[in-house]
Amino acid sequence: MLKGRSLIDPMDFTIEELEEIFSLADNIIENPKEYLHVAEGKILATLFYEPSTRTRFSFEAAMLRLGGQVVGFSEPNSSSVSKGETVADTIRIVSCYADITAMRHSKEGAPKIASMYSEIPVINAGDGGHQHPTQTLTDLLTIRKMKGSLSNFTIGICGDLKFGRTVHSLIKAISRYENNRLVLISPKELTIPEYIKKEILEKNNIEYVEAENLEDVIDGLDILYMTRVQRERFFNEEDYIRLKDSYILDRQKLDNAKDDMIILHPLPRVNEIDYEVDEDKRACYFIQAKFGMYVRMALIAKLLGVC
Amino acid sequence: MLKGRSLIDPMDFTIEELEEIFSLADNIIENPKEYLHVAEGKILATLFYEPSTRTRFSFEAAMLRLGGQVVGFSEPNSSSVSKGETVADTIRIVSCYADITAMRHSKEGAPKIASMYSEIPVINAGDGGHQHPTQTLTDLLTIRKMKGSLSNFTIGICGDLKFGRTVHSLIKAISRYENNRLVLISPKELTIPEYIKKEILEKNNIEYVEAENLEDVIDGLDILYMTRVQRERFFNEEDYIRLKDSYILDRQKLDNAKDDMIILHPLPRVNEIDYEVDEDKRACYFIQAKFGMYVRMALIAKLLGVC
Amino acid sequence: MLKGRSLIDPMDFTIEELEEIFSLADNIIENPKEYLHVAEGKILATLFYEPSTRTRFSFEAAMLRLGGQVVGFSEPNSSSVSKGETVADTIRIVSCYADITAMRHSKEGAPKIASMYSEIPVINAGDGGHQHPTQTLTDLLTIRKMKGSLSNFTIGICGDLKFGRTVHSLIKAISRYENNRLVLISPKELTIPEYIKKEILEKNNIEYVEAENLEDVIDGLDILYMTRVQRERFFNEEDYIRLKDSYILDRQKLDNAKDDMIILHPLPRVNEIDYEVDEDKRACYFIQAKFGMYVRMALIAKLLGVC
Repeated sequence: MLKGRSLIDPMDFTIEELEEIFSLADNIIENPKEYLHVAEGKILATLFYEPSTRTRFSFEAAMLRLGGQVVGFSEPNSSSVSKGETVADTIRIVSCYADITAMRHSKEGAPKIASMYSEIPVINAGDGGHQHPTQTLTDLLTIRKMKGSLSNFTIGICGDLKFGRTVHSLIKAISRYENNRLVLISPKELTIPEYIKKEILEKNNIEYVEAENLEDVIDGLDILYMTRVQRERFFNEEDYIRLKDSYILDRQKLDNAKDDMIILHPLPRVNEIDYEVDEDKRACYFIQAKFGMYVRMALIAKLLGVC
Repeated sequence: MLKGRSLIDPMDFTIEELEEIFSLADNIIENPKEYLHVAEGKILATLFYEPSTRTRFSFEAAMLRLGGQVVGFSEPNSSSVSKGETVADTIRIVSCYADITAMRHSKEGAPKIASMYSEIPVINAGDGGHQHPTQTLTDLLTIRKMKGSLSNFTIGICGDLKFGRTVHSLIKAISRYENNRLVLISPKELTIPEYIKKEILEKNNIEYVEAENLEDVIDGLDILYMTRVQRERFFNEEDYIRLKDSYILDRQKLDNAKDDMIILHPLPRVNEIDYEVDEDKRACYFIQAKFGMYVRMALIAKLLGVC
Repeated sequence: MLKGRSLIDPMDFTIEELEEIFSLADNIIENPKEYLHVAEGKILATLFYEPSTRTRFSFEAAMLRLGGQVVGFSEPNSSSVSKGETVADTIRIVSCYADITAMRHSKEGAPKIASMYSEIPVINAGDGGHQHPTQTLTDLLTIRKMKGSLSNFTIGICGDLKFGRTVHSLIKAISRYENNRLVLISPKELTIPEYIKKEILEKNNIEYVEAENLEDVIDGLDILYMTRVQRERFFNEEDYIRLKDSYILDRQKLDNAKDDMIILHPLPRVNEIDYEVDEDKRACYFIQAKFGMYVRMALIAKLLGVC
């Protein structure tokens, strides 16, 4: 039963509950017109204490495409609620006006606190470097739609695996499905933290290998999840110069990849995927953004209890 | 006849007109679904030259829950209309796009000027330290809903009674109803201005007493209206330290209050109501925020002439 | 066929296509209620990298009055899409959420680039000093509505004719209609650029005269299009002082004008039209703002293909 619940951590829902959401998303994608009025009379509050146009648009478009409405703010300065008022008081007042809320905050845990005082469902739309659960739902739905299931794949994850919250959440989520194999591609300074290896991968018997070069391993991948490697994460300039091209996906590297491999990216990209790759049929990062809207539609509808 | 009118000053409407609004608000609270489409095809413009998320959300949610739509801005910087254009010209242009407007401005009188040039109703959503009439409507509706009427009560008003515009408007408004008695609780530096005593209270034969300590008078109150006492309002630090706790409502002070007393606050609070009071059934300040949305729904519907 | 097209340059559409838009605008003005649901289920994204409340409100009100919905941002700071992401990537992501977009950008050509990568129609809502095509549509619709046609008029255009993009677009547009005569009124420093004389006026056999004083020529005009003359455009202070009053329209100058002359202005005005002129029945600049909303309704409906 998802009605009235909040989504704070990507692991808040069981596999069965996720399946319920994905299955509704499938239906919405097939028959969007049938959902045009399901949230009529309902209001989503988008409380973005930190700007994120892309995520905000995705939530707002999702609510509007369900027939609901939106109130919100998109940065702390324009928000008197951020001054001298606790998140607890703010959410109790917002609960008076809205039926569901999506909160983005620079402080870890703020959406969690909000959900404790709220009378309406709270969706964590990103809290600092901590969690961004709807990105994880987006990633899972995209794999499920483009590859037919969430099991039995070799999944390459490339970039900054040490600090990337998107990557950590994806690894935790995908580890709950059967028979996936991970290829973790990163510079040595930015490998996956030990606790994820021990508590997630090894505990769930997930097979994984680590690699320093994308080129060496791309041929075995069913899915390639690209993320950015920020220059300032490297310990020294030499390493950066030596390694940076290893983490840029271009057409040449793609020559060795499987024909049906899919390329994902949470976006925005800077230069880690060459623009020429956009034309390749394996490039799925823009449709991934579209699936992000559909999965948010399904999530909102389920938490509101209207579908 | 409220259709086409503006609301600039809390005293703009007669008691009968207020009753018309409150009575519609009652109906909306009872049967919100019947009002889901009454403002269909109408647009509210929220012109917030000064940010106030809470008030803006309340107006916008009100309009959306009537089936109307909203355009707006929420701070002066994002608003080219605030640069080099008079309020008169701005409102005439906004009149072209919208059917009703709510304006908040740091300058006293700006909404009044707007209403003079506007072809659509203008609601003052707060002009500097001057007026905030929909807060007064909210306060009156809340008392009426929680206590059954607006007459025959002993009403304590506590905090900064010298500078608080909310308090001044409430006193003027409540003085129009029969047989209310006021208990005005404040530090000596922050007592009610003489002109309110002379021109409002004495002219209307309103019985009142002044007190310096909340504890001394709380047992006789039917309604306790709390507001903030700002540190910088005190003339000296000693007075502040000596008195500040007198103006913080906690569970202990509540022990002496009547069982059916209601506690109101315009929000946001800082520390003048202890969080433990939130659990007390007499705490009505969050439901007051909800009534704020309903009274704005009734007001908008009446000014638009759709109900 | 306008469905799916973008509008970047005022000259993008043929006279026949413009006529299709104006004719729809006529119908909307006559029967606005018939259009209340035509864009139901559609979303307009307003991407305002540069603030312009008036233009944004006009687009948003237009979309809402068609039954559509809006997502958007109104200044660059609140927009993470403006940081480190190309316009090409931004528009591809926005294409996932919205059905049509209106973009305002301080850089010339940004909306053009967006339209090249977009899967949805892009409307240029102003790019730097370059183009602002919906202002031109507004000007044309207003002349057509108030004067009955777009041909056979003597049109005075007054103010800064050197740098004003609005003026250049209007001259290009009106030159496509038959038998119009232009009176170009400006200080010598701010006369119309040579390329417009050569490539537009002379190539299209448009008769024109240049004048330095509005008073000298106002009696012959059917239409007077006023724009602002900025002090900083003058080469020296003496010229400014000597000439500035020539470019301020007041009641006295109007005494010599035809009874059925119409006065237009793209707004906002500063002081170039005296407030006393607002009461004159020839003043059409506020209704022009209203026509701006209607022409945007027609444009959006046509590009979406819903009318």
